[in-house]
Amino acid sequence: MNAKQAIKEKALAAESASIALAAVSEADKNAALALIADALKGQTERIVRANTRDLDAADASGLPRPLLKRLVLDGKKILRLCDGIAGLISLEAGTGKVLLCVELDDGLELRKVRCPIGVVAVIFESRPDALVQISCLCLKSGNAVLLKGGSEARHTNAALAGVIAEAASRAPVPAGWLQLLEDRRDVEALLSLDAHVDLVIPRGSNEFVRHIMDNTKIPVLGHADGICSVYVDAGADLKMAVEITVDSKCQYPAVCNAAETLLVDGAIAADFLPPVAKALREKGVRLAGCAGTAAIIDVEPATDRHWKTEYLDLAMSIRVVDGLEAAIDHINRYGSGHTDAIVTNDQARAERFMEMVDSANVFWNCSTRFSDGFRYGLGAEVGISTNKIHARGPVGLEGLSIYKWKLYGRGQTVADYADGAKTFKHRPIHP
Amino acid sequence: MNAKQAIKEKALAAESASIALAAVSEADKNAALALIADALKGQTERIVRANTRDLDAADASGLPRPLLKRLVLDGKKILRLCDGIAGLISLEAGTGKVLLCVELDDGLELRKVRCPIGVVAVIFESRPDALVQISCLCLKSGNAVLLKGGSEARHTNAALAGVIAEAASRAPVPAGWLQLLEDRRDVEALLSLDAHVDLVIPRGSNEFVRHIMDNTKIPVLGHADGICSVYVDAGADLKMAVEITVDSKCQYPAVCNAAETLLVDGAIAADFLPPVAKALREKGVRLAGCAGTAAIIDVEPATDRHWKTEYLDLAMSIRVVDGLEAAIDHINRYGSGHTDAIVTNDQARAERFMEMVDSANVFWNCSTRFSDGFRYGLGAEVGISTNKIHARGPVGLEGLSIYKWKLYGRGQTVADYADGAKTFKHRPIHP
Repeated sequence: MNAKQAIKEKALAAESASIALAAVSEADKNAALALIADALKGQTERIVRANTRDLDAADASGLPRPLLKRLVLDGKKILRLCDGIAGLISLEAGTGKVLLCVELDDGLELRKVRCPIGVVAVIFESRPDALVQISCLCLKSGNAVLLKGGSEARHTNAALAGVIAEAASRAPVPAGWLQLLEDRRDVEALLSLDAHVDLVIPRGSNEFVRHIMDNTKIPVLGHADGICSVYVDAGADLKMAVEITVDSKCQYPAVCNAAETLLVDGAIAADFLPPVAKALREKGVRLAGCAGTAAIIDVEPATDRHWKTEYLDLAMSIRVVDGLEAAIDHINRYGSGHTDAIVTNDQARAERFMEMVDSANVFWNCSTRFSDGFRYGLGAEVGISTNKIHARGPVGLEGLSIYKWKLYGRGQTVADYADGAKTFKHRPIHP
Repeated sequence: MNAKQAIKEKALAAESASIALAAVSEADKNAALALIADALKGQTERIVRANTRDLDAADASGLPRPLLKRLVLDGKKILRLCDGIAGLISLEAGTGKVLLCVELDDGLELRKVRCPIGVVAVIFESRPDALVQISCLCLKSGNAVLLKGGSEARHTNAALAGVIAEAASRAPVPAGWLQLLEDRRDVEALLSLDAHVDLVIPRGSNEFVRHIMDNTKIPVLGHADGICSVYVDAGADLKMAVEITVDSKCQYPAVCNAAETLLVDGAIAADFLPPVAKALREKGVRLAGCAGTAAIIDVEPATDRHWKTEYLDLAMSIRVVDGLEAAIDHINRYGSGHTDAIVTNDQARAERFMEMVDSANVFWNCSTRFSDGFRYGLGAEVGISTNKIHARGPVGLEGLSIYKWKLYGRGQTVADYADGAKTFKHRPIHP
């Protein structure tokens, strides 16, 4: 059997499991999750041993220290993952929830019911913790999952997937719901399986996500760029604006919700730019700016290219704009629809910004770094979406669900309504 | 300017209008809809004159009579469209609705707010009424729309789009929200504009929809096939089962929610097949069947090809299956995830069927023909979706919306939470 056929078999197994999984009760899924947490604790040694193999190989191959650190999975991290699973068990998955109920006519009741999507493929990079979080989110939401982790974590991932699948198999959960792909070529094979895979969630570099988006007919949920802006309005508290700008840029610059661009209303640029530049430079941030910026502070000249760059680093582009509308235009033109913030004391201008900026997350007087499933209280997230359909922003359990329409009748036919013998009543029923 | 550039200009104009439209109040959108209805009535002569040109050309080119009939737009149909607009005005669009509200911490409030998708492209076939319905649904839901109708209705479509855009321009609605494409090549140009168009909804033949799905990176909402089944369970009322089968097949066989396949539990096949075959044949239905069917009634032999065929005609494939699970397997394998019905008096088996059949619409004891936005009470629909994400089944106003996350703060930074100075409270607030 060649690689392509092998991946198709895995997708078919996942598809078949997904159908059975749709009928598994929340209690049984929670029981499986509890067994998984127990097994992760009980088999910590097996996991750590596999992780050591990966770490040794990565060290020998000269993997940079920050990546090595992300690759580590020790007893402490496993306990934290188990805490996460306990949290997940306590959440309501919402599968089976009646979202809408209407009596179309006497004894003809329509229910819109939340249900799992089916088969979800998640492709993620080095951090092996993600395998546990993602597979547990998928199980909780009733989806079968095809997982492909970073190749530098292959032994860890295989151990984790083994522990999880074995543990879940002791609960009334269908086998095959978790499938591990192990090779980069497996991903290419996966991308052609749009008949069997309902959603792909890629997590990784811009280039990687864009490659996935460009090479599959499966719907893709996620984001390539994270070009986030902070706009400081004429009505801003400038001390607050400095703090928000510094936090948005510097609190963790390597992530998608860190700010790349600072937009400043021309009316306050002379007052605001010197202190914000000082605060950013104290944190080691390199600054580029437009001509208006350069007239006030000393910066490298910024061009169109800067407005489109996601630095993921201690660097920021500054543009002086002619008020709110110009800031909105800049963001809708150059931003990536991820997270954008306004700092102002003027509520009407803040509301207009949040209405007109076409981004997943639009913030008033707080840091762009807040856009995150955990901070939002959604529990874990499978990723952050900049899509305009299905799910936007941090994607948790709800983003892994869809709905179906169930119609309960007593023998009704459409002919009776078409010829006027009966008419629809459309009485809403509170679910 | 070549065709490709011209279409890009239209998409950019729509995109720009969509941003402004997101901030237009429901009252203003309703005012625009009322003006549109008035204008359609007031300019009926202009529209009918354009329609006559299309009808004359279609007649001369030998367009078949049923298609000619669909092409007619007269005063009576225009009045009915205006009634539809009045109904749409009375619906709540839900734009701006707060779906979830959580106080993350003191003075840090998160709101998940429904909003329009942005720019929607709808490509539809001959019936020009659709142009009015779709553009009004898009306006009501706050989306800019690119429309391409059937070329045989080009004069009618141009007149309708002109009347609608002119009327809306007298309300506080941004110009450019409605863009008409006029050429088949325009559609090809449109499909490459994934940076500016957020969703495509194709309505037409299987081949056409599949062509769109295969040739764009824009998310596509809709359905290609409509292979719907009726399963008659051992626990069925056989008289009811005959009525539901006949209605599902014959009430309007040319549409997607008409049934193509009849599945019959082996336990009742000998009792059920003769009367259902008689009733179907009285309506002129040609029957094909599996060997089990042929052992009981006289039918053309059915093969795998039959289970995959959408007849859209008075023809039906019959298969005798070994009970509920076999019926579910057949539907999940050969169906198109559109609409499937079970006829049974056994509630537990009905629930299992509705849980395990992975289709947008799953029905118990009623005709497959009920799956329709109007019958569901959703108001008009832009189409029926067999997608597994975003919107499933009949797509009305809600399917034309998405949400964004608004976070209202007072200067909060993430650093305070990361270093433990503050902790999240996640207090739900009822919106």
